[in-house]
Amino acid sequence: MTVHLGAVTDDDLRLRPRLDDLYATYTHLLEHDRLEDWLDLFTTDADYRLTARENFERGFELATIRCESRAMLADRVRAIRETQFFLPRVMRRFVSGIYVEGGDAERGWEVSANFLVVESTEDAPSTVHLVGAYHDWVVSDEDAATLRFARKLCVYDSPLVPTSVIYPV
Amino acid sequence: MTVHLGAVTDDDLRLRPRLDDLYATYTHLLEHDRLEDWLDLFTTDADYRLTARENFERGFELATIRCESRAMLADRVRAIRETQFFLPRVMRRFVSGIYVEGGDAERGWEVSANFLVVESTEDAPSTVHLVGAYHDWVVSDEDAATLRFARKLCVYDSPLVPTSVIYPV
Amino acid sequence: MTVHLGAVTDDDLRLRPRLDDLYATYTHLLEHDRLEDWLDLFTTDADYRLTARENFERGFELATIRCESRAMLADRVRAIRETQFFLPRVMRRFVSGIYVEGGDAERGWEVSANFLVVESTEDAPSTVHLVGAYHDWVVSDEDAATLRFARKLCVYDSPLVPTSVIYPV
Repeated sequence: MTVHLGAVTDDDLRLRPRLDDLYATYTHLLEHDRLEDWLDLFTTDADYRLTARENFERGFELATIRCESRAMLADRVRAIRETQFFLPRVMRRFVSGIYVEGGDAERGWEVSANFLVVESTEDAPSTVHLVGAYHDWVVSDEDAATLRFARKLCVYDSPLVPTSVIYPV
Repeated sequence: MTVHLGAVTDDDLRLRPRLDDLYATYTHLLEHDRLEDWLDLFTTDADYRLTARENFERGFELATIRCESRAMLADRVRAIRETQFFLPRVMRRFVSGIYVEGGDAERGWEVSANFLVVESTEDAPSTVHLVGAYHDWVVSDEDAATLRFARKLCVYDSPLVPTSVIYPV
Repeated sequence: MTVHLGAVTDDDLRLRPRLDDLYATYTHLLEHDRLEDWLDLFTTDADYRLTARENFERGFELATIRCESRAMLADRVRAIRETQFFLPRVMRRFVSGIYVEGGDAERGWEVSANFLVVESTEDAPSTVHLVGAYHDWVVSDEDAATLRFARKLCVYDSPLVPTSVIYPV
C-alpha cells in the first residue's frame, strides 16, 4: 500500500474515469435488475464475497455470500430469478472514495471504495440498510479496453446480518 | 441501453469530468440557495419533474413538482423566494453512480445517477430525507463548452411524499 | 464564486481526477487508521477545523476541533494514539459533489464538497452520524505533482455535537 503523494501520470488520469465508469455500471445494472449483464463485469475465475467486517478482519472464511467463479455467481443469479420472492423494496447504492491501492495495467489494480445501501419500502421512511467497503481487484483485458472485477469483497460494518441480503451488494 | 464494456475513447474520458462538474455545480448552487444561477443549468425547454417511483414506473403523469420549461422553473423559484417559510433545516445532497446510458455530442446524452438527501434540523439527529435516481438528458451547447439539462426527472423511492419538499431535489 | 458554465479547458479536466484522488486518499487513510500518513495531506501551515454550521455561518471562532498547523494536527494524532479509548465503532465517510469554486495552479483552489459519515457499532443498525460540507483550500507543490490541503473546514449541519467526535472528519 502506498500513499498517493507522487506525481500523477497521464495513465493515472486515464484510469480514474474508467474506474468511475466500472463502478457506476455495476450499480446501474444491479438496480435495473439486469443481473445477467452484471455477470459480464466479472472475470471467469472471479472471487465474489459478501461478509461482515468482523469475519473479514479475523480472517474467517464465513461469508453471507461466497462465489468463487463467475459460473457460481451465475448460479446465484438463476436462484434469485427462480425464487422471485422480492418484497416491494428498493435498494439504492452509493459508492464513494474509489481509491487505487496499487497495481498496474498488466497485473491489474487493487481498488477499494466505500458503499452505502439505502432501503426504501412502501410504508416506512428510507433507511440505511448496509454500509461498508469494497476490497476489489480490477483487471483490464488484452486490448486494454474493458475493466472487470477479478475479485470483489463486499465487507459490511455492522455485525448484524440483514436477513434481506439475498441480492448482491 | 448498452452495457459499457466496449473500448473507452478519449471523448468518453473527457465527458465524465464534465458530467461530474455539472452535477457538482447543480448540488452546490441549490445548497447555497443560488436558485437563479441554478436555472442556468437548464435549457429553455427543459422538462423538470420530481415524482415518486411508483408513479414513474406506471407511467402516471402525477408529479410532486412538474415544470415543462425553464420559465416554469423560474416561476417556481420566484414562488420559493416569496414564501420564505423555510424552517431552519439543511438539506445535503449526495450523488453517486453517474452513468451514461447512451447518446452523443450532437443529440446529447441520457444520464442517470442516484441521489440521497440528508436532512438536518436544530433539534434532532440528521436523517435520510429522500433517496432515488435522476433520469436526465444532458446536452452540450453549440461550441461544446457548456453542459445543461434538457430533462431532469428526480424519481424518489419511497411512496411517502415528504411534506417538506418545496425545494428542488 | 463563479458558476461553472464556461468552457472546460484541458487543465480543468486534469484537475478533477487529481481532486478525486486527494479526497479518496484522505478518506482511505482515516478509515485505515493511518493518521500519521494522513498528516502528509496537509501543508505545514494548514488550518483544520471541525465546527457546527451555526458557528461557521455566524463567524464564531468556536470549534469542536481547531488545529492551526500540521504540527498541531500531529499533536492531536498523538493524543488519539495515547488515549486509545476507541469503542468498537466504525465510521464510514461518503464525499460527494467536489466543486471547484475558483483559483488556479499558482494560488491553489477553493474547493467544497459534501460529506456524510455513517456509524456502525456492534449492537445496532448503522446510522447517519454526521453530515455537512468541507470548505477547503487545495494547493499544488512546486513541481505540480502533489495536492495538499492548506485549509480544511469541516462544517456539520446539525447543531447537536456528537460526543464521539474525537477522530477527524
